[in-house]
Amino acid sequence: MSYVLGHNQYGKAEVHAVRVYRDGGREAEHEIVDYNVSVAHQGDFEDAHVTGDQAKVLTTDATKNTVNAFMKEHGDEAREPEGLALALARHFVDTVPQITSCRVNVEAFPWERAHGTPHGFVRNKDYVRTVTVTKTPDAEYVVSGLKDLTVLKTTDSEFHGFYEDKYTTLKPTKDRIMATDVKAQWLHNGTDVDWGKSFSTVLDAVTSSFANAYSYALQQTIWDMGTAVLDAADSVSEIRFSCPNNHHFVIDLSPFGLENEFEVHHADDRPYGLIEATIQRDESSSNSKAFDPGQAW
Amino acid sequence: MSYVLGHNQYGKAEVHAVRVYRDGGREAEHEIVDYNVSVAHQGDFEDAHVTGDQAKVLTTDATKNTVNAFMKEHGDEAREPEGLALALARHFVDTVPQITSCRVNVEAFPWERAHGTPHGFVRNKDYVRTVTVTKTPDAEYVVSGLKDLTVLKTTDSEFHGFYEDKYTTLKPTKDRIMATDVKAQWLHNGTDVDWGKSFSTVLDAVTSSFANAYSYALQQTIWDMGTAVLDAADSVSEIRFSCPNNHHFVIDLSPFGLENEFEVHHADDRPYGLIEATIQRDESSSNSKAFDPGQAW
Amino acid sequence: MSYVLGHNQYGKAEVHAVRVYRDGGREAEHEIVDYNVSVAHQGDFEDAHVTGDQAKVLTTDATKNTVNAFMKEHGDEAREPEGLALALARHFVDTVPQITSCRVNVEAFPWERAHGTPHGFVRNKDYVRTVTVTKTPDAEYVVSGLKDLTVLKTTDSEFHGFYEDKYTTLKPTKDRIMATDVKAQWLHNGTDVDWGKSFSTVLDAVTSSFANAYSYALQQTIWDMGTAVLDAADSVSEIRFSCPNNHHFVIDLSPFGLENEFEVHHADDRPYGLIEATIQRDESSSNSKAFDPGQAW
Amino acid sequence: MSYVLGHNQYGKAEVHAVRVYRDGGREAEHEIVDYNVSVAHQGDFEDAHVTGDQAKVLTTDATKNTVNAFMKEHGDEAREPEGLALALARHFVDTVPQITSCRVNVEAFPWERAHGTPHGFVRNKDYVRTVTVTKTPDAEYVVSGLKDLTVLKTTDSEFHGFYEDKYTTLKPTKDRIMATDVKAQWLHNGTDVDWGKSFSTVLDAVTSSFANAYSYALQQTIWDMGTAVLDAADSVSEIRFSCPNNHHFVIDLSPFGLENEFEVHHADDRPYGLIEATIQRDESSSNSKAFDPGQAW
Repeated sequence: MSYVLGHNQYGKAEVHAVRVYRDGGREAEHEIVDYNVSVAHQGDFEDAHVTGDQAKVLTTDATKNTVNAFMKEHGDEAREPEGLALALARHFVDTVPQITSCRVNVEAFPWERAHGTPHGFVRNKDYVRTVTVTKTPDAEYVVSGLKDLTVLKTTDSEFHGFYEDKYTTLKPTKDRIMATDVKAQWLHNGTDVDWGKSFSTVLDAVTSSFANAYSYALQQTIWDMGTAVLDAADSVSEIRFSCPNNHHFVIDLSPFGLENEFEVHHADDRPYGLIEATIQRDESSSNSKAFDPGQAW
Repeated sequence: MSYVLGHNQYGKAEVHAVRVYRDGGREAEHEIVDYNVSVAHQGDFEDAHVTGDQAKVLTTDATKNTVNAFMKEHGDEAREPEGLALALARHFVDTVPQITSCRVNVEAFPWERAHGTPHGFVRNKDYVRTVTVTKTPDAEYVVSGLKDLTVLKTTDSEFHGFYEDKYTTLKPTKDRIMATDVKAQWLHNGTDVDWGKSFSTVLDAVTSSFANAYSYALQQTIWDMGTAVLDAADSVSEIRFSCPNNHHFVIDLSPFGLENEFEVHHADDRPYGLIEATIQRDESSSNSKAFDPGQAW
Repeated sequence: MSYVLGHNQYGKAEVHAVRVYRDGGREAEHEIVDYNVSVAHQGDFEDAHVTGDQAKVLTTDATKNTVNAFMKEHGDEAREPEGLALALARHFVDTVPQITSCRVNVEAFPWERAHGTPHGFVRNKDYVRTVTVTKTPDAEYVVSGLKDLTVLKTTDSEFHGFYEDKYTTLKPTKDRIMATDVKAQWLHNGTDVDWGKSFSTVLDAVTSSFANAYSYALQQTIWDMGTAVLDAADSVSEIRFSCPNNHHFVIDLSPFGLENEFEVHHADDRPYGLIEATIQRDESSSNSKAFDPGQAW
Repeated sequence: MSYVLGHNQYGKAEVHAVRVYRDGGREAEHEIVDYNVSVAHQGDFEDAHVTGDQAKVLTTDATKNTVNAFMKEHGDEAREPEGLALALARHFVDTVPQITSCRVNVEAFPWERAHGTPHGFVRNKDYVRTVTVTKTPDAEYVVSGLKDLTVLKTTDSEFHGFYEDKYTTLKPTKDRIMATDVKAQWLHNGTDVDWGKSFSTVLDAVTSSFANAYSYALQQTIWDMGTAVLDAADSVSEIRFSCPNNHHFVIDLSPFGLENEFEVHHADDRPYGLIEATIQRDESSSNSKAFDPGQAW
């Protein structure tokens, strides 16, 4: 055969399951979790591609059924998305012989209790919580994350002293709006973590450092957010950010006889700067809590 | 001419402007508003279409410039989206002779102060606040609104006793999740309103009544939300809702030997029920605060 | 009661059904239609809202079932979206006593045969075909349409001689790109129409007149497209357009020593002009094919 | 320092530029290209993050300016997206010392001439053409691609004989609709390629093999599409697919007394199978045209 099968994986994507915890019965106070779960299997699946023989293929439909069943069977672990993802990845690798590695992604949509009622909820859309668990024959990796968290500061942001080439026309500034949609993912150095508490700690560190740190560039703000997370959360080995620079341009109102001192801005859509960086613990330091990322990402 | 020009309007859509209020200077506590503004003009524009003569056309570019300039010139009114929309609609109708009517739509994106900082903000994405102001030669209409508010209740919802025809297969239920994305728009009976306070009152009435009222159908819940708004907000003459029934189907886990008593649900995407209704004050009652909707909608 | 129920309607939205016509059997050449169907009922539904009594409510689930069943039962009519929509609207109004009016919207997604194969298809995403059928106690209205058709001309477009006020800064131009996403809906003056042929005629008239007509404004181009449709399609009584002006701004490359004579453009996202107009047959002319729009829109 | 900066890159994303080629003047036949360009730089940017010193940072604004200028300066190369991407990546790495590697992504939106006119165009939205060029200190990688190509076959698709575990409930089938949105990316073994012709060859191989090949699973169909591409395009070293299984479920119409032999289907949204695979030339074969993928992906 002159052609070969390279990297491949398959599974069911976007199983959207909502679990209600009504342990005290219909009238008691309920809890809910709202997850969008995607599972990808790797293993011995060459025949499925090359000859069409599906004898080793666990169907994506059974994969979906497993996700739904685990929301009940592993209800306690499923109270946190990391718990559900770990339970699923371990199940597929441990019980289906031809699956050698498995990656489970979860988007967790937060809900908040409405007006103190026992059964009423409002979706908190400020951000989405994410999880990627990867189980290989040798290791387990838990990457927690958040995305779509939109933050803005109205000052305490400068940008100047940059490199200039023949295509550079940007004017330096000592004052500007800085805004971004935070996407962050962080690798834990183990699985013995209080996932809910850890998430809250990271979320708080991110928003607090964004709001408080003086900024000379979005790159520096990302570094500040990342080190704040590593300071606050012992279980985090490294954190990756992908942050657009949501440009807000001061509008020239002088044709209309109006001054505009950083007040009225055009919120532009495209193009946008895109800054991506990883902040890690230094492995060489004594007692480092760094963890080999391996196939986590 | 055998063809005639019928209803027509034009303008600039989606002028996305962010205003920072830094009245106390750079170091003081700032405020922000974040508006996506669309303006549509009606009037004497037949020539622009039929002969191509643009002599009466105020350009959409000038319309955009006016929106941006008014964020500064009418900064105080612009602290509330209704205020900006009224100022714009009045300007266009009063100063451009050939514009006889004008409709201004605003999407207002709420932001919340981050960690008590003077300059840091987090976007509250739970809902979008909306405004539609329509100014005609004879009247002004202010319609406030909200959209994309996602609410869910885990019980206190039944659905049974419905009409059955030959295509009916649905089983009645005495218990179910009810969830929707609330889109509501309400017409005020005047313009002398504290817009910010009024919006908060309506938002609170909507979420509270959704969470608290026992439901025999989404139709009934909409009625309950609407009457709660009319009870709470004197300035509201009528309110319109457009609410999808975000179906959550209980998953049959019996093939896996699992009971599932309203716990694990599939959150389905399409199709969905769509319920739309208007709740109005009774014009015939004495002292009714009803207002003729005219061309408000 | 001090509050009253105003305008209301309900139904099932976005029933996404794909019908394969395999009349000659599995091996023969197949045909497909791909519809996203939404149905809204009006009638005697006050109790459903005010008291929660659902005795008159045909469920949205049964409405969905009817759509799916009609794709089979009325398979011949369903070869065109207008045919399916008419069959559904008539069914609901004629067989469910409490439904007095019904509106059926269909999005029809076109597919094209792939490489002449009997069973292979490629989705043609250049546009979406739409239908809105409204049946009232007294009349039937068929509005056909298209949306998301993106067209552009690289010249033969001017814009100048416009009205100027104090907020006008736009420079007039004798040459520019003009581009838009055509959304058009046209009302037929009856139901005895070859829907497929009529749609092709309108689509051809729209794209041809856009490409060929010299333009002094998008308003004029819309007029030209509309009159071209009325010229070409006898069954069309009136046509409505909603067209964004997809701005393409010539980029100033002079800082880099480059001339840019209408060559390199920035395709901007927001804001955009939005032009909406209706072109109608003149009712007063003899032998006019105009049709009273009534509740069509 | 106990924390270190790991992988990082930055640049400008989504520079949406449209170039008109009007070489013969305003009246001649024009050509257009429509590109959405994203550029990411890697290099010596630690200071920008850690100290806030921007002395080495080429601004994202200058990056945008370069893209726009190159649409004119390198107009001939820019007729194909691969040509523009190569010119840009080489420029940044060769002329900005601190940039050591650069990745350029282009989305190219195809347009077709309308009705044979010299200046009128209709967007072909059936697919988007993509390019990723990566230039490192040692190598250049060109990955061409396509996405959002939606294909469907109405039969000649089976699925059975699969692995069964306790969560398997799927019934095997000898007949079904198979549909997917093709996303494919292919690595070239050099840069001396007729990019436009190569793209057409691959597009044709993909759609033809999808439509013609009998399928026992989407995995097998992907293998067939991949080998068809490698057969047809000498310059392609390997190709990667990511294809959702767009499920079409046969609807049970028996409650309404109707047979439904693979005719009426529900086109479901979520969840969906997701199949990803790479098909490569065998490096060990003599005269293999395989190319070390290095940092291409």
